[in-house]
Amino acid sequence: MEDFAVGQIYTVGPIRVSADAIKAYARQFDPQPFHTDEELARSTFFQGLAASGWHTASLTMSLVVQALPIAGGVIGGGVEELRWPKPLRPGDELRLEGEIVEVRPSRSKLGQGLVRVRTTTLNRAGEAVQTMIANLIVPRRPA
Amino acid sequence: MEDFAVGQIYTVGPIRVSADAIKAYARQFDPQPFHTDEELARSTFFQGLAASGWHTASLTMSLVVQALPIAGGVIGGGVEELRWPKPLRPGDELRLEGEIVEVRPSRSKLGQGLVRVRTTTLNRAGEAVQTMIANLIVPRRPA
Repeated sequence: MEDFAVGQIYTVGPIRVSADAIKAYARQFDPQPFHTDEELARSTFFQGLAASGWHTASLTMSLVVQALPIAGGVIGGGVEELRWPKPLRPGDELRLEGEIVEVRPSRSKLGQGLVRVRTTTLNRAGEAVQTMIANLIVPRRPA
Repeated sequence: MEDFAVGQIYTVGPIRVSADAIKAYARQFDPQPFHTDEELARSTFFQGLAASGWHTASLTMSLVVQALPIAGGVIGGGVEELRWPKPLRPGDELRLEGEIVEVRPSRSKLGQGLVRVRTTTLNRAGEAVQTMIANLIVPRRPA
């Protein structure tokens, strides 16, 4: 906890996301035509193949793990808000921007602190495909 | 939209989650020892192998797709709150309980409505491993 301060910015990426990866995730977790089939996707809400929002969230987690140097690992205490302003498209690349917005000791656990982070997951054009406010459980340094 | 009403309950499941599935998801999206290795996991925060919260969220989406009969598909307009009160463990089974908490026309899009759903993802012991409040974009029936 002691290594974090409000206003710190972390950036990481890019990672590339293929059509095959979008379809493989969707077949397992979100098997709907706009996530699994280019042809069928054209006449849907998304007007073409788009990644499941939960795939975007999963990819964002892989970037968070790269970005945040937390002893004992990145452990989520919950998410306050999660939005997908634009869909993630095949062949796009993702970057993460994370900003620390709160740092405080846990109210109930003596050796723990809480770090609140606002993340923005950006596509190649710099548009947000996901925004999130998440709470992380972090260890405190012994006094 | 017209098919939904506040108070409707949807239940679906169970699906079984293996240690291999937990590790396969984690290697791709959340490669931390407590999600990828039984031995190393013992001395961590989770005291044993536990699924990534984003894996639990992905599995929950697969249950939501089964549970909710929405013309045009289940399309997420965002999540208000997402919590993981307990970790999902290998060999456990998940069930979903979803309750409709709000139904209203879209303020900006003529043919669309918004359905707010509270989901609880339960393990075999009936404990919540995830709670979520999500907004879904649904089509309206022509007048």
